[in-house]
Amino acid sequence: MKIVKKIKISKLNKIKTKNGNVMHALKKNEGSFLGFGEAYFSFVNYGKIKGWKKHKKMTCNLIVPLGSVKFVILDDKKKLKKKIVIGENNYCRLTIPNNHWFAFKGLSKNKNIILNISNIHHVKNEVEEIIDKRLFNLYF
Amino acid sequence: MKIVKKIKISKLNKIKTKNGNVMHALKKNEGSFLGFGEAYFSFVNYGKIKGWKKHKKMTCNLIVPLGSVKFVILDDKKKLKKKIVIGENNYCRLTIPNNHWFAFKGLSKNKNIILNISNIHHVKNEVEEIIDKRLFNLYF
Repeated sequence: MKIVKKIKISKLNKIKTKNGNVMHALKKNEGSFLGFGEAYFSFVNYGKIKGWKKHKKMTCNLIVPLGSVKFVILDDKKKLKKKIVIGENNYCRLTIPNNHWFAFKGLSKNKNIILNISNIHHVKNEVEEIIDKRLFNLYF
Repeated sequence: MKIVKKIKISKLNKIKTKNGNVMHALKKNEGSFLGFGEAYFSFVNYGKIKGWKKHKKMTCNLIVPLGSVKFVILDDKKKLKKKIVIGENNYCRLTIPNNHWFAFKGLSKNKNIILNISNIHHVKNEVEEIIDKRLFNLYF
């Protein structure tokens, strides 16, 4: 299975059209694409945090087509690697390699929608989850 | 290249979680998955119609995570094959085979977002587009 080693931020195109915009997410010839396992949406309510999660195998390709979401990414030893806000006003794809902890917070009072295009299916024993309030207070 | 011959409607799971729902879109082991070429979003404003389009090669897997969108699908000879409204209140994936004409209208006054997961890249000479107001009046 192909992997990426580093967190990647890739600027994405928004194409204005008369009756509603078109917004790119991921193409198979882009470096962030490591195979298709599953695509699913996560909504995160205003002011709420989801996480921390660590995928042992999954690479996540995260796109926020609506709203604004703050992501904090730590390495396997919980050392800070990246803080970033993506969404309508900073329309990027965030690629998170496996074996990284991450959490995210909804910043828009309207909807915050995240699309994850991952290289493997969601399976329960592949993901670890913890609630670490100290890390929430530190980074959010 | 794998193809599907018939229009497919697949009910999708919505998983309620405390800080925002998770909503399925597409998994690689589902029959509608014919390979990954590209994922992109189309927004369609309230009361506006986009279409008609016909993809010669692309199979479209369309999911509406927010809002409500009416799709009308015709065969290659412009004979009606399907009319359906999908979105938040009828959360389904709509699979449109190649060589079908389709158009769609935004029904929600808020945002109407469509995710297309297609089996090939978007390339210009693969898609035909016409504006046929008679067909708009007939079906929308």
